[in-house]
Amino acid sequence: MSLTKVFPTEKFRNLSKFRHGLCVLLAIGMLTMCAVGNASAQEKKQIVRLAKLVIDPAQLEPYKAALKEGAETAVRVEPGVLTLYAVSEKNNPTHFTILEIYADSAAYRAHLQTPHFLKYKNGTKDMVKSLELVETDPLVPGMKIK
Amino acid sequence: MSLTKVFPTEKFRNLSKFRHGLCVLLAIGMLTMCAVGNASAQEKKQIVRLAKLVIDPAQLEPYKAALKEGAETAVRVEPGVLTLYAVSEKNNPTHFTILEIYADSAAYRAHLQTPHFLKYKNGTKDMVKSLELVETDPLVPGMKIK
Repeated sequence: MSLTKVFPTEKFRNLSKFRHGLCVLLAIGMLTMCAVGNASAQEKKQIVRLAKLVIDPAQLEPYKAALKEGAETAVRVEPGVLTLYAVSEKNNPTHFTILEIYADSAAYRAHLQTPHFLKYKNGTKDMVKSLELVETDPLVPGMKIK
Repeated sequence: MSLTKVFPTEKFRNLSKFRHGLCVLLAIGMLTMCAVGNASAQEKKQIVRLAKLVIDPAQLEPYKAALKEGAETAVRVEPGVLTLYAVSEKNNPTHFTILEIYADSAAYRAHLQTPHFLKYKNGTKDMVKSLELVETDPLVPGMKIK
């Protein structure tokens, strides 16, 4: 029996390299799956809703100023407020829709306690004629605004 | 008369440095104003609207698949389609609202000619029970989704 049969060093090295490569590939695959899984799980916890408001026409400008300040501040200082994208209808400028996205329910509850939200809420309560909150499911939770 | 009075070299150098600094500051200021002005002008050209749709309940799943494919493709391949953020109401899953943002009217017109839009439009025309397009003004045009 030749030594090369007992210790087929070259083959062993190649096999070892192959196993090492396989391990690295598997590890990368698992990490990728974890990352994708986490992103998806995070997105599933999102609160996405439409707030539909009608504003007193006599107080439209102060309402807009208050909403602008409140929304910009919330998105700037609260990591869990992902957007507060507000639009008013061209044909009904007192009709507003706000797309609200919060990272999760804890982020939403925290938002309700912030000084900027309370200032907006208390400061505009006599300007808002009606408010409807519509809970929604996003079709593509990872969709952004470019 | 001393030479330093005729050639106040040190003072001249300081004045020259001061002028140079002032020029740089003014140039930076002007560039910043141009950039802000451009961003603002670009945002003013945006088309921002809400599409409100009601879908045939029997065709809800194929409709969702078609909208998802059309919206994701448009945002990925068309630089002028800034978002197509679609939501369905939890209490009325056949009621959809899409926040559509286009960079300008040319981008919107181009979008209407794309194969993915035509595929979505033709493929879903018998699934859509009603469609309302509401033209809007964004309150904060630069608002994003984090």
